Amino acid sequence: MRILGIDPGLRTTGFGVIEIEGSALRYVASGTIKTDALPNGDLPGRLKILFDGVCEVVQRYQPASAAVEIVFVNVNPQSTLLLGQARGAALAALVSSDLAVSEYTAVQMKKAVAGHGSARKEQVQQMVQRLLALPGEPGKDAADALGIAITHAHAGTSLALLEAASPLERRAHAAYKRGRAY
Amino acid sequence: MRILGIDPGLRTTGFGVIEIEGSALRYVASGTIKTDALPNGDLPGRLKILFDGVCEVVQRYQPASAAVEIVFVNVNPQSTLLLGQARGAALAALVSSDLAVSEYTAVQMKKAVAGHGSARKEQVQQMVQRLLALPGEPGKDAADALGIAITHAHAGTSLALLEAASPLERRAHAAYKRGRAY
Repeated sequence: MRILGIDPGLRTTGFGVIEIEGSALRYVASGTIKTDALPNGDLPGRLKILFDGVCEVVQRYQPASAAVEIVFVNVNPQSTLLLGQARGAALAALVSSDLAVSEYTAVQMKKAVAGHGSARKEQVQQMVQRLLALPGEPGKDAADALGIAITHAHAGTSLALLEAASPLERRAHAAYKRGRAY
Repeated sequence: MRILGIDPGLRTTGFGVIEIEGSALRYVASGTIKTDALPNGDLPGRLKILFDGVCEVVQRYQPASAAVEIVFVNVNPQSTLLLGQARGAALAALVSSDLAVSEYTAVQMKKAVAGHGSARKEQVQQMVQRLLALPGEPGKDAADALGIAITHAHAGTSLALLEAASPLERRAHAAYKRGRAY
C-alpha cells in the first residue's frame, strides 16, 4: 500500500511517497514543489503551481491514501493566512483526486519517527534516512513529508493490530491513548 | 463577458455570476456552497465540498474570469487558519479551471457597489439588488459575491476605457488614482 505524505507551505511544499510491504517500509519518491519563480503578490498563480504539483505527484505515484501535516498559527497573522491558503490548495488537490486524507501534527510525526515530540529537524532527517534505508539524508521539507507518511503507516498498522487484538489488549491501548501508564 | 464572484468561507461560500452587455450588467445566477452537513473536524471533507462546488459553478456558467474577496486576519488565529484553507481550496478550484483570478478587498467592493467603504451588509444587499434589477434582495453571502463580480466588472471597464483614452485623460486618471482632485 502506497502512502503520500505532504508538508504544505506557500513557498515550498514537501512530498514523500512510501510503500508498506508486510511490516517493512520502502521509499518510493520524495521532493518539493516550489512556487518562488512567481512574485509574492501572485497568490492565485502560486496556488496553481502547488495544486498542479500535488495532482501530478498523485497521478505519477498512485498512492492509496494521503497524510498532511497539521499547520499551526504563526506569530504573524498574515503568514498564518498565507500558510492556510497553501494548505487549503494542497488538500483540495488530494481530495479532488478522491484520496482519503489523514492529518497529523508535527509532534505526532516527531514521536513516530524519532521517538520524542521535541526532535530537531536534523534528527527527523537522520531518522527518516535510517527508517527508509536511504543512501543519503533527505532535504528538510522532503524529510518532514516522508515523516508524515511514516506516521500514517504506523497509525494504520497500530489500528490493524488493534482490530486483531484481544479485548484486554484493546483496553490497554485505550488507557495508553488516554495518556495513562498501564 | 461573464464574471464569477466568490466570497469564500469554510461554512458558507457565496458565489455570484453576472454578465457585461455593453455598459449594462445583467444577473445570471447566485447562491451559496454550504459545508455544515459535515462535522467541524472533517476539514478535508469540507474542503472537498467547497472545491467541487466551485468547480460545478464554473462548469455550469462558464465565466470568462473570476474575482475573489480578499479575506482578513481574524481576532482568533485558529479561525484565520481555517478561513485561509477555505480560500485556498476555492482559489485552487478557480485556477485549476484555468480562470484568471482577480482579488478585491471588502472595502473596494463596498465602494464599487454602495459608494463608500463603510457600507453595512444590508446596504450592499440593497445596492446589489438595485444594480442588477433583481426582484428581491439576495442573501448576504450571495450579495457579497455578486458585489465582488460587480467590482471586477467596474475595474475591467475602467481599464478598457483608460486604454482608449487620450494621454491627457490618462494623466487625469493617474492623478485621480493617487487620490488627488483633478
